Amino acid sequence: MSMDEFAIIKHVFRPLAGNDTPAMNLENDTAIWHPPLGHDLVMTKDVMVEGVHFLPNEDAGVIAQRLLRVNLSDLAASGAKPQGYLLGFIGKAKVEEKWLMAFAAGLARDQEEFHISLFGGDTVSGSQSLALSLTAIGSVPTGQAMTRGGAKPGDHVFVSGTIGDGYLGLQSLLGNSARDDDAIRSYQLPEPRLRLGLELRGLASASIDVSDGLLADMHHICEASRVGGAINLDEVPLSPSGKKYACENMAQLLRLATSGDDYELLFTVPEKKAARVHEIAAKVGLSLTRIGEITGGSKFSVFGSDGKEIDVSMHGYRHLNR
Amino acid sequence: MSMDEFAIIKHVFRPLAGNDTPAMNLENDTAIWHPPLGHDLVMTKDVMVEGVHFLPNEDAGVIAQRLLRVNLSDLAASGAKPQGYLLGFIGKAKVEEKWLMAFAAGLARDQEEFHISLFGGDTVSGSQSLALSLTAIGSVPTGQAMTRGGAKPGDHVFVSGTIGDGYLGLQSLLGNSARDDDAIRSYQLPEPRLRLGLELRGLASASIDVSDGLLADMHHICEASRVGGAINLDEVPLSPSGKKYACENMAQLLRLATSGDDYELLFTVPEKKAARVHEIAAKVGLSLTRIGEITGGSKFSVFGSDGKEIDVSMHGYRHLNR
Repeated sequence: MSMDEFAIIKHVFRPLAGNDTPAMNLENDTAIWHPPLGHDLVMTKDVMVEGVHFLPNEDAGVIAQRLLRVNLSDLAASGAKPQGYLLGFIGKAKVEEKWLMAFAAGLARDQEEFHISLFGGDTVSGSQSLALSLTAIGSVPTGQAMTRGGAKPGDHVFVSGTIGDGYLGLQSLLGNSARDDDAIRSYQLPEPRLRLGLELRGLASASIDVSDGLLADMHHICEASRVGGAINLDEVPLSPSGKKYACENMAQLLRLATSGDDYELLFTVPEKKAARVHEIAAKVGLSLTRIGEITGGSKFSVFGSDGKEIDVSMHGYRHLNR
Repeated sequence: MSMDEFAIIKHVFRPLAGNDTPAMNLENDTAIWHPPLGHDLVMTKDVMVEGVHFLPNEDAGVIAQRLLRVNLSDLAASGAKPQGYLLGFIGKAKVEEKWLMAFAAGLARDQEEFHISLFGGDTVSGSQSLALSLTAIGSVPTGQAMTRGGAKPGDHVFVSGTIGDGYLGLQSLLGNSARDDDAIRSYQLPEPRLRLGLELRGLASASIDVSDGLLADMHHICEASRVGGAINLDEVPLSPSGKKYACENMAQLLRLATSGDDYELLFTVPEKKAARVHEIAAKVGLSLTRIGEITGGSKFSVFGSDGKEIDVSMHGYRHLNR
C-alpha cells in the first residue's frame, strides 16, 4: 500500500513530532523554538540520494539512522549538543507504507538515543529518485564552536576510533568482499562522536569529522587553518578488519585513508595540552591516536611505514586538487 | 559545460556566502550563528522538484527566487524576520554551468532584497530528478510568533492582496490560457508578505499563508484553533485577471479559492481590534479584505453570492478531507 503526502505527514511524521515541542504536532508550516541562552547555534545539512548514498535494498530504518547520524557527526566536530532537525522527504510517485514505517522507526530510535526532536520539514512526491534532505541544529556555548580553522604549527594531530571500516563495510555490503558484520555496522550506523566533541571544546584548535576521507579531511584543516601538515600512515589506527585488509600493503592502506565514511573526529591540539587527550580518551571510552602534526608553510605530506614521503596524488586522492 | 559538486560549491555557492557570516565562506560542514537575544527562532522547510513544482524550461533564477520566497512566506505568516537559509541542491548527473549561474544570480537578487544570507547546505549529484530543499530561519520576539491556532469565535477573517493569480499564472505559463504577464509574475515571483506579518504580531489571533488554497488554508486555521468558520466567496478579493476568469461563475470562483500558490496571508483578528487592520493596510500599502468570520463549533461553511451555502466537497476541495 502506498501513501500520499498528507497521509505520510499525518501517520508517519506526526508521531515523531510531539505536541509540546517546536514542531507543535506539525500543524504549522513553521517550527517555533527558543534557543538556549548564551549559546551559538550550529547548523548543518546533508542530503542522501537513493542509488548514490544508499542502496535501494538497504533497510529503511538504517537509512534513516545513517542520515541523522552523518548530520550529528558534523555537530560533534563543532562540539555542539544536538537539539533537533528538519527533514525534507522527497519521494517517488509511490512510497510503500511498510518502507515508510520502517524509516520512521529508525528516526524514532535515534531521536531517543540522541535526545533530539523533529522540528519540522516538508514531504513531497513525484521525484524519480528518492532523496532525503536533513537539516540538524545544535547549540554550543557562545564562541566555543570548533571549526576546521585554528590549527597552528606544532599542534599534534589526533583521530578517534579506527579508519577504513566504513569503506570495508560498503564493499562487504556490495558483495565485493566477504561478509564482515562489524564493518557493515560501521558503514550503516556510524557513531557520531558527540561526547568526544563536547570534551574537545576549549582544547582542540581545529576539528573535522572524517567523511571525505582521512587525508582529504586533514587537507581541509590545513587549508582552512592556512598551515601545512604531516601524517604518518603507519600510525593510522585500524580495526582488526582494517589490519587484515591493509596487511602492510601501502596502496591498500592508502585506500582506507582516502575512502571516507568514517565519521571519526580528526582534530589538532597544541603540544603543551596534548597530554590531556589521553584523559579524555579514558573518559569517553574511545581510542584517540596521534597520527601527525601541523607544520608551517602550506605543504601537506604523507609518510609511509619506511619513513619515506608518499606522493598521494598518485593514489586517487581526488580531494587534494579541488 | 557541466560542473561537479566541488566546483559547484566553490564557484556557485561560495560567492553567496560571505566570509564574515555564519557560513564562514562555506569552509566548514556547519554554520555557526548567534541568534538574536530575546527572540524565538522560526524555522521552515520547503522542497521543490523539477516537473512537480517547477517546469524544466523555467528560468533558473526565477526558480531560485520562488523557492526562497515560498519559504519566506511561511516566515511572514509567523510574523518572523528572515535571517538566513540552508540549501540542499540535489542535482542530476550533469548540471549545466549556465543554469547554475542563473540559479545563483536569482538567489543573490533575493538575498539582497530580503536581507538574508546563505548559512550553508549540501550539494549532491546523481539524482534522476533535480530537487531543491531549502530551510529558512527567522526570528521573532519571544512568545510573539503567530500560528494557525488561536482563532476565537467572533474573530474576523482577513486576506491580503488578491486570490487566484498564482493559478492563473501557471495556466498561462502552461499554455492553457492566453498570455497574462501579471498573473505569470504572481505565480513565478510571489511576494512574501513580510512587512504585513511584522505588523500583525500582537493583533492577529491566527495566521497562515495561502499555499494549499484559500479554503484549505482557512480549514487549517479552524482545525488548529478548534473552531468553526464561514467564508463569503463573494468577498474574496480578485485581480482584474481573476475577475475576468471568474466572471460570476461560481465553479470558476471556487477554483481560484482552492488552487493555492497565492502566498497571501490569511489571518483572524478579534472583532474589537478589527478597525486597526485598515490602518495596517494603509501602512504596508496592501489591500486587506474581510472575507468571513470564526464561529463556535467545528463547522466550516462557504457561502456564495446568493447567500446560499455551497457544498465545497463537490468542487475538488481535496484538502478538507485529509
